[in-house]
Amino acid sequence: MFELHPRLAADTIALGAFPLCRVLLMNESRYPWLLLVPERPAVGEIWQLAEEDQRQLLRESSWVARALSRAFAADRVNVAALGNVVPQLHVHHVVRRRGDAAWPGPVWGRFEPLPYAAGALAARRAEVCGALAGPVGFRPCGPT
Amino acid sequence: MFELHPRLAADTIALGAFPLCRVLLMNESRYPWLLLVPERPAVGEIWQLAEEDQRQLLRESSWVARALSRAFAADRVNVAALGNVVPQLHVHHVVRRRGDAAWPGPVWGRFEPLPYAAGALAARRAEVCGALAGPVGFRPCGPT
Repeated sequence: MFELHPRLAADTIALGAFPLCRVLLMNESRYPWLLLVPERPAVGEIWQLAEEDQRQLLRESSWVARALSRAFAADRVNVAALGNVVPQLHVHHVVRRRGDAAWPGPVWGRFEPLPYAAGALAARRAEVCGALAGPVGFRPCGPT
Repeated sequence: MFELHPRLAADTIALGAFPLCRVLLMNESRYPWLLLVPERPAVGEIWQLAEEDQRQLLRESSWVARALSRAFAADRVNVAALGNVVPQLHVHHVVRRRGDAAWPGPVWGRFEPLPYAAGALAARRAEVCGALAGPVGFRPCGPT
């Protein structure tokens, strides 16, 4: 049975799910930053997923990257499966803009996260959930 | 027409190609580190590839990650499309081991690369090309 890794649960806010992946917002207000976590037990790397799950992850990931790119006028969307700290497979999608706090370096390990204030979180949730809506099947969850 | 970005050419050693992607070895001897570069002009992000090319990239990337994981007894293979410095789409595949120079942080922006000595390069090339052989259609190029 799939269970979200407690470190991912602690560092993020649940936004909803696609058919395969749970969608989590990193509680780091410097960048719009989503994680996709395939709801499959005991998977650490993309190649360990079944082939059909790999293709579904690709569909969901490409949809998310494109949606974030457009909604936030990104210069780049960094897409990465690292897992050095949390072994459960999770794919980062980070909106990057020239001149952001870590640009052009990577965002990982650079700063202590700057959590969202309540109002900013509600606004970010609405923006992101609006951007993800469409044919790939995103289902938002309510604020928890 | 596809042309490899000059910064990628300068930082890497060509190992060969899959049906879609050129395979480059980062000239950084601290970690076995490959780049896959789809031979398509003017593409910066995975979602900008045609759908069939996205699926082919996934096949090649999963094959590479699995092959590197097994050949080098990796604890993780970091797979990432960043592009903050070089806009041409290129997907990193980095063998990570607990206790490597940057562990558990990311490898990007951490150290000046430590280039391979000639003998170590020949050995790494042989290991990697041997690991990539198989049904996904890797064709090694000779030392250039």
